[in-house]
Amino acid sequence: MINEYLQKTAAMVEKQLQDILTAPSPREETLFAAMRHSVLAGGKRLRPALFLATMEACGKVGAAYLPFAAALEMIHTYSLIHDDLPAMDNDDWRRGRPTCHKVYGEANAILAGDALLTHAFAVMAETPAPARPLLQAIAWTARQAGVDGMVAGQAADVAAAGQEIGRDLLRYIDRQKTGALFSASIVSGAYLAEAREDQIETLKRYSDLLGYIFQITDDVLDIQGDAALLGKPTGSDAKNAKTTYATLLGCEGAMAYARELAGEARRLLLDWPEEAAVLREMPAFFCQRRK
Amino acid sequence: MINEYLQKTAAMVEKQLQDILTAPSPREETLFAAMRHSVLAGGKRLRPALFLATMEACGKVGAAYLPFAAALEMIHTYSLIHDDLPAMDNDDWRRGRPTCHKVYGEANAILAGDALLTHAFAVMAETPAPARPLLQAIAWTARQAGVDGMVAGQAADVAAAGQEIGRDLLRYIDRQKTGALFSASIVSGAYLAEAREDQIETLKRYSDLLGYIFQITDDVLDIQGDAALLGKPTGSDAKNAKTTYATLLGCEGAMAYARELAGEARRLLLDWPEEAAVLREMPAFFCQRRK
Repeated sequence: MINEYLQKTAAMVEKQLQDILTAPSPREETLFAAMRHSVLAGGKRLRPALFLATMEACGKVGAAYLPFAAALEMIHTYSLIHDDLPAMDNDDWRRGRPTCHKVYGEANAILAGDALLTHAFAVMAETPAPARPLLQAIAWTARQAGVDGMVAGQAADVAAAGQEIGRDLLRYIDRQKTGALFSASIVSGAYLAEAREDQIETLKRYSDLLGYIFQITDDVLDIQGDAALLGKPTGSDAKNAKTTYATLLGCEGAMAYARELAGEARRLLLDWPEEAAVLREMPAFFCQRRK
Repeated sequence: MINEYLQKTAAMVEKQLQDILTAPSPREETLFAAMRHSVLAGGKRLRPALFLATMEACGKVGAAYLPFAAALEMIHTYSLIHDDLPAMDNDDWRRGRPTCHKVYGEANAILAGDALLTHAFAVMAETPAPARPLLQAIAWTARQAGVDGMVAGQAADVAAAGQEIGRDLLRYIDRQKTGALFSASIVSGAYLAEAREDQIETLKRYSDLLGYIFQITDDVLDIQGDAALLGKPTGSDAKNAKTTYATLLGCEGAMAYARELAGEARRLLLDWPEEAAVLREMPAFFCQRRK
């Protein structure tokens, strides 16, 4: 069921991204080619799917807000481009392709990331939606993608490089690097669906749990996963001597912990209506993912 | 008169930036220190001043919208941090200080830029203002800072490095790299002041002219300016074999052209009320600037 949902929403988001990522004139063609190289590389489009699934769980038709969904994927992709840079994780492969800076050079990769991030906010602000909820969704997304989330998490990750870190700091980094953008996607959907305050609070907790589960399974896949399926080499955490849940608890222990968190996340939504089924099943789906 | 106005607005913006750039917890301290290093280095705060002056020219009190003004300066500073990176212009000095990456390293400089850009949109979206004009201002700013402006200009500049370029392409690059963020500042102020459509159109033309004037004087100062006043070494265009208006027309010819454009920009606002005096005098002020 989740697989079908993801396929359906990915196709809608893909079309939207194609429209957005067309250069206004030949002068911007190289910049847009670098953006498209990384965005249109067949990712799972999880964040747009979570955004759309949340709107449905809150009783709205998410498809009307597809530009906002596409913008979330643009923010996710900018973060991948910058994380892959030589000065950061120095990765050569991503989504089965050479990384942006390997193809277009470092300067263009920095600019392609900057352009995706900046343009995402134009796309969000131009989404046809009620103005006040839209501003709440934009502010929440900017905070989660920035200083209250993803960028702060990446900075902490950079600072921790090569050091052994405790479970508290690991939890912080995982929440900020991964949970925060899930939170941006899910809570933005709830704002735009004009959900009740108690629903929004529940979804914030749910998003953080989903972030931990995703990050733990990511760490395990980096040890036990199939590089061809993942579209990037495995073993990078070991190479960089990174502390992860898998190194702290072992792969089996980490997966048992992920399943425990998945149960917790599911229980948060037990009394939600049928329309919340995708969100309810997502945690277990994350525990079983192979890519 | 302009000097006094700039001093007054810079003091207000400074206070606002100090408040915004306080780390939420000790874990974000290094990231915020890198952001503060570049933002709180005593720039002229021209873009916030243009934003505030425009609101006044359109009959509103700009001071109520100071967070938005500060956000414009954050976007400007992010662009300086990324432009200075080794993969881009590889500059060591800015605003009289070592550049961000010289002090905090490349990874943190990339992240400090990302954080400033992202957080600027949170600050804008949280500015207490009527919702619909605020969304227009955010969308316009994102387009001008991104694919319809600054990032596209920087990409074109990177592509043109070491090549002789014609006047058309030079005009495009100058408009995108410099005029676009002036346009973001001025036109956003007009949207938030709920200006008439014809006023907005006039201000768009005015912004572009102001951008050309600023860029031309910048090129001349890079040849004839005082490095101590400028806070950065001169001669960088010659070092990088860059085509500028100064190389095309000579310093005197370039300044004559700047003064011609300044007259044109001033004339656009001749029949505007007394409150537009700062905007009316700004073009001539740019022609006389020494830093």
